[in-house]
Amino acid sequence: MTSTVLTSISELWTLDPARDDPARPGTVTDEQVVRDAAVVIEDGIIAWTGPSAQAPSADTREDLGGRAVLPGWVDSHTHLVFDGDRAGEFEARMAGEAYAAGGIGVTTSATRAAADERLRDLVRARIAEAARGGTTCLETKTGYGLTVAEELRAARLASQLVADGELDEVTFLGAHLVPSEFDGDADGYVDLVTGEMLKAVAPYVGWIDVFCESGAFTPEQSERVLRAGADAGLGLRVHGNQLGASGGVALAVELGAASVDHVNHLSAADIDALAAARESTVATVLPACDLSTRAPLAPARELLDAGASVAIASNCNPGTSYTSSMSFCVATAVLQMRLTLAEAIRAATRGGAQALHREDVGHLSVGARADLHVLDGPAAIHLAYRPGMPLTHRVWRAGIPLP
Amino acid sequence: MTSTVLTSISELWTLDPARDDPARPGTVTDEQVVRDAAVVIEDGIIAWTGPSAQAPSADTREDLGGRAVLPGWVDSHTHLVFDGDRAGEFEARMAGEAYAAGGIGVTTSATRAAADERLRDLVRARIAEAARGGTTCLETKTGYGLTVAEELRAARLASQLVADGELDEVTFLGAHLVPSEFDGDADGYVDLVTGEMLKAVAPYVGWIDVFCESGAFTPEQSERVLRAGADAGLGLRVHGNQLGASGGVALAVELGAASVDHVNHLSAADIDALAAARESTVATVLPACDLSTRAPLAPARELLDAGASVAIASNCNPGTSYTSSMSFCVATAVLQMRLTLAEAIRAATRGGAQALHREDVGHLSVGARADLHVLDGPAAIHLAYRPGMPLTHRVWRAGIPLP
Repeated sequence: MTSTVLTSISELWTLDPARDDPARPGTVTDEQVVRDAAVVIEDGIIAWTGPSAQAPSADTREDLGGRAVLPGWVDSHTHLVFDGDRAGEFEARMAGEAYAAGGIGVTTSATRAAADERLRDLVRARIAEAARGGTTCLETKTGYGLTVAEELRAARLASQLVADGELDEVTFLGAHLVPSEFDGDADGYVDLVTGEMLKAVAPYVGWIDVFCESGAFTPEQSERVLRAGADAGLGLRVHGNQLGASGGVALAVELGAASVDHVNHLSAADIDALAAARESTVATVLPACDLSTRAPLAPARELLDAGASVAIASNCNPGTSYTSSMSFCVATAVLQMRLTLAEAIRAATRGGAQALHREDVGHLSVGARADLHVLDGPAAIHLAYRPGMPLTHRVWRAGIPLP
Repeated sequence: MTSTVLTSISELWTLDPARDDPARPGTVTDEQVVRDAAVVIEDGIIAWTGPSAQAPSADTREDLGGRAVLPGWVDSHTHLVFDGDRAGEFEARMAGEAYAAGGIGVTTSATRAAADERLRDLVRARIAEAARGGTTCLETKTGYGLTVAEELRAARLASQLVADGELDEVTFLGAHLVPSEFDGDADGYVDLVTGEMLKAVAPYVGWIDVFCESGAFTPEQSERVLRAGADAGLGLRVHGNQLGASGGVALAVELGAASVDHVNHLSAADIDALAAARESTVATVLPACDLSTRAPLAPARELLDAGASVAIASNCNPGTSYTSSMSFCVATAVLQMRLTLAEAIRAATRGGAQALHREDVGHLSVGARADLHVLDGPAAIHLAYRPGMPLTHRVWRAGIPLP
C-alpha cells in the first residue's frame, strides 16, 4: 500500500455525489469545492480530502503551489479506432460545403486498410494525447469497420486496451453508416448488424450505439439495432438530432438509453422528454463538433434550465471533431453555450460518468478512482477566462501520475 | 557566422511579399507555400528556402519530420504590463453582466501597487507564455498607469524589454480610460495625456493609441490624442467600434492610423473606408476578445471581401481577453468568422506586421528575421481542424530556438 498527499490546492473540486443539491441537479454546491485543500491517494483511490492544514502524512508529499484540482475529464463519446484523416473534407466544409454523413466511408476505407499493430498504436497515441489534456476516463466506439471481421477487430482492440487499464468503455457502433457494400439495402445491413455482427462483437463491448439520422439509419432501423443490443445485454447509446429532427431523442428516452448525443435540433417536446428522463438518459452535447461542422450549438442552457442531465464530450473523430480537448469543449460551453463554469465542469465529469453508468469517476470523494487534473492556474475559471492557453499542469489516472 | 538548416518540412509558409497576388490581397498564393521544403537560418536571418532535396549544408541540420512551418505569429495588439487578474468580473460577465470599460480601473489600481521588479517579471512571463504558443513578434501597450509617473514606468519597462530583444513594439495608451482622479473632467485628463504625459513617455515608445468609445474618449478627444502623438513623431493606433458605432474607424482612416482594432460594429461606410485605406490602415480583429465579452464577432469576412487589410491579434489583457494564444484566435477566425485558413494565417502574420509597419517579420522569405513556428502536424489546417489541441512543436525567434 502506497500513499501520496497533495497539498496547497487552491480549489479542490470534489463534486462529491453525496453533497448534490437535489433542487439544483446540474450545478455544483459550495460543499463540493474545498478551498485550501489537500487530497490523499492510496493505492489508486481517493482516501481523504480536506483542508490542507489538516492533511495527514503519507509516503510521499507534493505541494501543488496553489493550483486548482478537478476530477479528470470523463469523455463519454469518442471514435478513436481509425486510420487516416479528413483534413481536405474539413477545409472544404470551412469553405462552405455542408457536412454529410458520407465522409464516414472515407475513414472506413482507411481503417480497414490499416494493420492491427498500426491501428493499436494510433489509438494508444490518441489516448495519451487526451490524457495530456486532462482526460482520464474514455469511452470509444467501433464503427469504421462495418463488416463482421472489421467491427470485431476494432472491438477486440479496444477491449484489450480496457483490460490493460488504458481505456474505460467500449461501444459497438456497427450502425454508424450503411457501408457501400449494402448501398440501397439498409435493412439488409441492419440484419447483419443485429445478427452475426452483434453476436461476434458483444463479448468485447459494454454498449451499443446507432447513428439515427437522415443519411444513416431511420428511427425504425435504429430501434431494431438498440433492441437487439439490449437483448444481448448491452447498454444503449444514441447519436440523435444532429442534422435535424431525427427522432433519436424520443427513441433514446423511450428505450431508456443511457445517453443521446449531439442533440443540436430539439423541439420543446424533446427537451421536456429529456428533463423527465433525467435519471435514465443524459443529453450529451459535443461543442467542438458543433463548431467544426458549423452546426447550431446544442441548446445546453435550455436543457439544464429544463432540468435535463447534461454531459459534455469531445466526439473525437477525424471527420467532424478531430480534437480530444475537453478543456476546449468546456471553454466553448461557457463562452458560447452560456453554461456557468460549474455547470460545464460538472457536465464534463459527473455528466460523462452518468452517461457511462460509472460511479467511480467524475468526482474526487473518498473511494473514487484517483483521477486528478491539476490546472496551471489558481482557479478553475481560468479554463474559460484564458481560452486557448495550455492549462493542464499534471494528471493522475488511477493514482498514477502521467509522465 | 552560424547556420542551421531545417529539413523535411511538409509545408513551408514563406508568405514571401514579392509573391503576393495584387488581385487577391488578403490571401496566400500557391508560390507562398513550399511543399517538401527546407529553410536555412544564418545569424538570425532566413538565408535560403527551397525544396528539401536541394537544401545546402550548414553548421547544424535538423529534420522536422514532415511538420508544417509557419512564420511566428505577429501579435500586434496586447496589454501585457499589468498586475492582478479580473477572474471575478469575467465570471460575472459569463453569468450575464455586460462588459463596461470601467473594469480597466481595477487593473490600474493593481498595477500601480506593483513593485518594478514584480511588474517586469510578470511581463516577461507573459512574453514567454506567448512564445510557447508560437508568437515571436509582440506589441504591448501601456495604459494601466494613467499618471505621468506610472505611464512612464510602464513605457520604460517595455522599452527596456525591446532593447533586450524580448519584445518588439511599445505603444503609449495613456488614453485608455479617464482615471478616477479625473472623474467628470475627461478633457482635463486629455490635456495631461497630450501634454506632460506624452512628453515624458514619447522617448520610450513608437506608437500612440486611444480607446475611442462610449465610456472612454469621444472622437474629438481621441483626435486630440492622436494628433498630439503624431506631432511627437509617434505612429497612430486606435481602439474603435468595439461597443458601438464609436467613430473610431472614420477617425483612424482620416488620420492614417496604422491600425484600428476591435471593429465589431461597422457600417457599410466603415467597411468601404477601410477597403479604400487598405494600404495605410489595417482593420485588426480580436477573436478571443469577442468571445470573452460575448460581442458580435468582428466582420472579418466582409472586410476581406471588400478588400480591406485585416490583422488578427490576441488583445491579451486581464479584463476582456486573458489569452495570448494566437493559434486559438486563428482557429476561431476559421471556424466562426469564416476566414479560410490561408486568410487567417496571413492576418495573424503579415497582417500584424503591416499593422506594426514591420517588413522583417510575418514572412519567411530570404532576409526576414528567422521567426519560425513549427506545428505538431503535417499541415497547417490542423490549427482549425484540431481546435484546442497543443499544436506548437518548436519555435525559433530571431534564429534562436526557444528552450
